[in-house]
Amino acid sequence: MRIGLDMMGGDFAPAEAVKGVKLFLDGDASNAHLVLIGDEQALTPLLADAQLNQSRYTVVHSSQVIGMNEHPTKALKEKPHSSISIGFHLLQNKKIDAFISAGNTGAMMVGAIYSIKLIEGIQRPTISTVVPRENGSYGLLLDVGINADCKPENLVQFAVLGSLYSQYIMGTDKPKVGLLNIGEEEGKGNLLAQATYPLLKENTHLNFIGNVEGRDVFKDTADVIVCEGFTGNVILKMAESFHDVAVRRNIKDDYMDKFDFEQYGGTPVLGVAEPVIIGHGISGQRAFSNMIGLAKKMIESKLLEKIRESFVEVK
Amino acid sequence: MRIGLDMMGGDFAPAEAVKGVKLFLDGDASNAHLVLIGDEQALTPLLADAQLNQSRYTVVHSSQVIGMNEHPTKALKEKPHSSISIGFHLLQNKKIDAFISAGNTGAMMVGAIYSIKLIEGIQRPTISTVVPRENGSYGLLLDVGINADCKPENLVQFAVLGSLYSQYIMGTDKPKVGLLNIGEEEGKGNLLAQATYPLLKENTHLNFIGNVEGRDVFKDTADVIVCEGFTGNVILKMAESFHDVAVRRNIKDDYMDKFDFEQYGGTPVLGVAEPVIIGHGISGQRAFSNMIGLAKKMIESKLLEKIRESFVEVK
Repeated sequence: MRIGLDMMGGDFAPAEAVKGVKLFLDGDASNAHLVLIGDEQALTPLLADAQLNQSRYTVVHSSQVIGMNEHPTKALKEKPHSSISIGFHLLQNKKIDAFISAGNTGAMMVGAIYSIKLIEGIQRPTISTVVPRENGSYGLLLDVGINADCKPENLVQFAVLGSLYSQYIMGTDKPKVGLLNIGEEEGKGNLLAQATYPLLKENTHLNFIGNVEGRDVFKDTADVIVCEGFTGNVILKMAESFHDVAVRRNIKDDYMDKFDFEQYGGTPVLGVAEPVIIGHGISGQRAFSNMIGLAKKMIESKLLEKIRESFVEVK
Repeated sequence: MRIGLDMMGGDFAPAEAVKGVKLFLDGDASNAHLVLIGDEQALTPLLADAQLNQSRYTVVHSSQVIGMNEHPTKALKEKPHSSISIGFHLLQNKKIDAFISAGNTGAMMVGAIYSIKLIEGIQRPTISTVVPRENGSYGLLLDVGINADCKPENLVQFAVLGSLYSQYIMGTDKPKVGLLNIGEEEGKGNLLAQATYPLLKENTHLNFIGNVEGRDVFKDTADVIVCEGFTGNVILKMAESFHDVAVRRNIKDDYMDKFDFEQYGGTPVLGVAEPVIIGHGISGQRAFSNMIGLAKKMIESKLLEKIRESFVEVK
């Protein structure tokens, strides 16, 4: 198993990326091999300092970096030697089994969609967030931002993708799927929610439990909550801001601590044909380590095969 | 000034409504006269116990009640002697200057729109929530649920209505108006947000400051935040649930306490031709008292005249 990591992506790269690699390797006894893509000159002294087991990683040199604010398509085209471009090239050619970056999110999305392609039958890829719940478990909310306008069928596909992710990665048995809405009964909500409800209800692959409301997001009413990316993104950023409030106001609470979303590392881009994980720009060592762990889990669990099978059946 | 109050609406009516009347009258030295609409037999002993100044209220008997789960249009039609029907009848005939109820929200909306009508030029009424901010001030978020699907022009009208409310009721000078979105720059967001941005920008009645994100909702980035009622409702219910979490987990914090949205009483139905205020079903005495105070403020400030003038100009 070879996991590719963009060492140049993120506000604290490459230092935090190297620390994250160390954190992961120190706690992992498998034979997962890390392919570290970045500027060799910058990486060499950091890697030497970290005293890593050299058999567990390989450095692939990249001479360019795509900045956080560059135009994604243009940057990918003009910077073929950037860490992101090289990462997708390696993934496309099966030299790595997963690719992780905390760099330019747009470039990661464009790269995932156009160089890796979507799994057959999937109309749009989606990104998600884990949702800490008061009972200690975690839920999943998707989409959280790349699909601002959706059709009912998109939400149904997100539900299937989220459900498989919840089952195979998060270990939830028969995940309960809820449709985010502004009322409990069928027929409530905006036109999108009204049209999506019957499609979710009739889908035999899903354990659909009906509508959930804003008050249910952090409860265990549903394990997978689907919505378009506009509302999902607002929810995620609002939840992050609640955590900021708690920190600023010195509120000490185990549950509130879990709203530090950066610790979860990043989101997989569900729907693309290979494991791709996008991290927060502000990823620190723990986030990098967690993303490597997530990539490993996605490969080991054969999540993408499960998704492929599921969408073949649907066809 | 005569303020009408539905004494039978809400889960704790009429007892909490009577207590709310007392709370208001005890703290109010004006000549505001309250018209208490409800079952005389139920009210008489409660009012006697409360030892209110009898010159400050009149009881209007209602022999029917519209239940919280009744179908709004049907209930209003079949129960002309209900407190809500009588309230709107009195308001329509200028016997009262404002009408407040914590009863069936749907019936209140239908009554407001069909018996009171909208102010000329306004396409849809809207409901809002005050938003507690960390610096101690309050913002306004609208729509929070009755307009699940919106056109760009609707959001612009909500912005104008919210702006006038923020100025004349909440006392904010030149309220900053923000468009809820999932990115900062113009051009970001879903189709609705993309189409709304230029309309807000060109509207000379508004102090439009651009897009705001989920993380800005509880900051003072904008004083008035506009969105369609789907996202707004999810935000409101999610914020309420955060408060529930804080209470359950025994988190003591002045700011978190302000997320007890019930204390704010209720929301005006902005856009209708007379002051109409809808309360939470679970309204307690403080909520009732605050709603009476809000009605008084809406009348005194001549808010509806300001709205009328503003929409005449717009035409």
